Amino acid sequence: MNILIKNANVLLADGKVKIADIAIKDSEILAVENIPETFKAEKVIDGTDKLATAGFVNAHTHVSMTLLRSYADDMKLMDWLENKIWPIEAKMKKEDIYWGAMLGIAEMIKSGTTTFADMYGDMDQVAQACIDTDIRAVLSRGIIGVAPNGNQALEENKILFRDFNNANDGKITVMFGPHAPYTCPPDFLQKVVKASEEYNGEIHIHLAETKGEVENCLKEYGKTPIALMEEVGILDRGVLAAHCVHLTDEDIQIMKKYNVRVAHNPGSNMKLASGVAPVQQLLKAGVCVGLGTDGASSNNNLDMLEEINLATLLHKVNTLDPLAVPALEGVKMGTEYGAKAVGLNNVGLIKEGYKADIVLFDMSAPQCYPRHDLVSLLAYSMNGSMVDTVLVDGKVLLENRAFTTIDEEKIKYEANRCAMNLTLR
Amino acid sequence: MNILIKNANVLLADGKVKIADIAIKDSEILAVENIPETFKAEKVIDGTDKLATAGFVNAHTHVSMTLLRSYADDMKLMDWLENKIWPIEAKMKKEDIYWGAMLGIAEMIKSGTTTFADMYGDMDQVAQACIDTDIRAVLSRGIIGVAPNGNQALEENKILFRDFNNANDGKITVMFGPHAPYTCPPDFLQKVVKASEEYNGEIHIHLAETKGEVENCLKEYGKTPIALMEEVGILDRGVLAAHCVHLTDEDIQIMKKYNVRVAHNPGSNMKLASGVAPVQQLLKAGVCVGLGTDGASSNNNLDMLEEINLATLLHKVNTLDPLAVPALEGVKMGTEYGAKAVGLNNVGLIKEGYKADIVLFDMSAPQCYPRHDLVSLLAYSMNGSMVDTVLVDGKVLLENRAFTTIDEEKIKYEANRCAMNLTLR
Repeated sequence: MNILIKNANVLLADGKVKIADIAIKDSEILAVENIPETFKAEKVIDGTDKLATAGFVNAHTHVSMTLLRSYADDMKLMDWLENKIWPIEAKMKKEDIYWGAMLGIAEMIKSGTTTFADMYGDMDQVAQACIDTDIRAVLSRGIIGVAPNGNQALEENKILFRDFNNANDGKITVMFGPHAPYTCPPDFLQKVVKASEEYNGEIHIHLAETKGEVENCLKEYGKTPIALMEEVGILDRGVLAAHCVHLTDEDIQIMKKYNVRVAHNPGSNMKLASGVAPVQQLLKAGVCVGLGTDGASSNNNLDMLEEINLATLLHKVNTLDPLAVPALEGVKMGTEYGAKAVGLNNVGLIKEGYKADIVLFDMSAPQCYPRHDLVSLLAYSMNGSMVDTVLVDGKVLLENRAFTTIDEEKIKYEANRCAMNLTLR
Repeated sequence: MNILIKNANVLLADGKVKIADIAIKDSEILAVENIPETFKAEKVIDGTDKLATAGFVNAHTHVSMTLLRSYADDMKLMDWLENKIWPIEAKMKKEDIYWGAMLGIAEMIKSGTTTFADMYGDMDQVAQACIDTDIRAVLSRGIIGVAPNGNQALEENKILFRDFNNANDGKITVMFGPHAPYTCPPDFLQKVVKASEEYNGEIHIHLAETKGEVENCLKEYGKTPIALMEEVGILDRGVLAAHCVHLTDEDIQIMKKYNVRVAHNPGSNMKLASGVAPVQQLLKAGVCVGLGTDGASSNNNLDMLEEINLATLLHKVNTLDPLAVPALEGVKMGTEYGAKAVGLNNVGLIKEGYKADIVLFDMSAPQCYPRHDLVSLLAYSMNGSMVDTVLVDGKVLLENRAFTTIDEEKIKYEANRCAMNLTLR
């Protein structure tokens, strides 16, 4: 379908904002600014007074955990996991995974996210939710190597790859999801490396999230988690590494060498008191850093504009440098860098030849005035509820803040029903 | 006027959320839960599926600085002040102050703030904006003692007090606003103390915002800013102290002794890289800590729910304690404690006899599901755009997200016009 977005304030690939038109042909951006005279639009979207950006890329989440949103907060990590999160997760059935994913995807689309990278169990259900909503996704089966079902989970990840890699017109890709070094010992990780070679799939893993994890890794293996991953061969496979909070200078050099891409999760790292990732150092070293929300039980939403805002603020105060992560750099982390982080090379910019994953923000709220600098407004003043229109792969999924294809009321009802049943079971 | 809010999820004074009715008689809350049979409502507001909280109290801002929103960001503090903020502020005229205030007040009402404490120049214009919008406010004339107009500014603060303290049916109160110890030397501050005694007014001042300020104070006076304020007699007058980022244990003891109330500004402190205030220690010591946005040029919005969220997250990661500033404590800082901080004793709770400053949040967004814990949803998941209805002093100012009394379009137009003119002048 040919769509023309007219007269929007477009955040262009060079970081400048300009009033321009965007021509979309099927799934791709055909032209920006200079629209060919021959282009005939079947649908015109008025972008007047709206800000157009590439859709956000949520580079790390566990989308079905939206069912656990507000279920357990303000607790110590192990108390939270052992007494609340793990027991209720153990009760989750396929239906819960599906409706949790549908709720999370609805939230993400409504707040401007067009791609997410996910890691969880029963991922066929998440894949189905992606197909039913037409969001772009990079899915991996979370694999706990030390669990009794470790090998089975790896098999499920292979099946997920066979069934869904490049599914839904290429909007779904699949990675392998070994959970973390502390749940997947080296010999198990080598099995994952083998599978990822066999399927030519990349790897999504949690690395160096907490200080305790790094200390235990040093004690057990004499290496940091990053160095251990290098040794095991994980880093040769193309890695999306979530968190990377506690890193040495050597770790950062290794990450650069292997082009490890980071999913930084400022909201989750703050809420769980994990620490502050050395994002300025990573960016300076040339490491690709995207942003993620993590699961909704440790955030507690999937609002990527909030993560962009947190990333811009947190690193300023943490380094005592008001120039750390400026507005545009934060926005790039949430779009362009995030797309690279999850392994998508034609996503994350409003640019000819890129996928038409585009968000239009309504700028009518008082906090969008005055208009000295629209990128600054986006990063520092606006919020995710200002999203008006969302396109994924050239298809309009949200228009005037309403879904065009999915039934939001049914999703909220079913997700709430599943969540309440889980607490009763 | 008698108003009945029916069937809302009410955040009660004990911190619990319960479905209940709220009866409002004129400016006050007459009853919560058990409504007298004799109560006849002239207006009924349906609170079904909505969350009712006390209105937020923005305990420290410079509201007219909304005109400078997005004008200058990602700069070093002195570069920002000397080359951007001060030169443009010097050009601001009464009209700019008025429309900047109107824009900021519109933003605050729309995001659930019902009271704000302000410090700036030309405060008669801000007072007029408060009267024109019917928001509750605690106003002070920002006084730079070392400036050529220092004494004149103090006189203006006295005039502000005479003209507007207890104005607009008591919704406006006035404090004295000596800017900071580094801009008001001790002998000047003693003049302020005298004026505040003469008028029986309290004091709103910036204290210990940056490390440099504290170091210079120690060098010049051999005392911390807090200890210097004790010596000068400021603390005897009842003090709302903005920032308080860099404090010693002795400072905290002094603050407790004099019941100094803190306006903590997490967003501004993060963006300007000022540091992290010892909020957990202050709360533990029994010091009252409210929340403020600071001006929109260092935040860059006046969204108090964002400040609540930042306060809950920042102190967890800063102290590496996931139990720091739990959800309810964050909400209290933004309401109950904030009201005490700005000197209002019957504001900040939904409770019989309190002022009817009430916000109803629309909970229809996906991130408000599931409903395990509504306080947790408020602090961690929701955002300021979910505000549906706002009452101040028993009067409905916002209903179904639309203003009932003021012309939002005109305000945005005039504020933008003033801001653009300022950059051209």
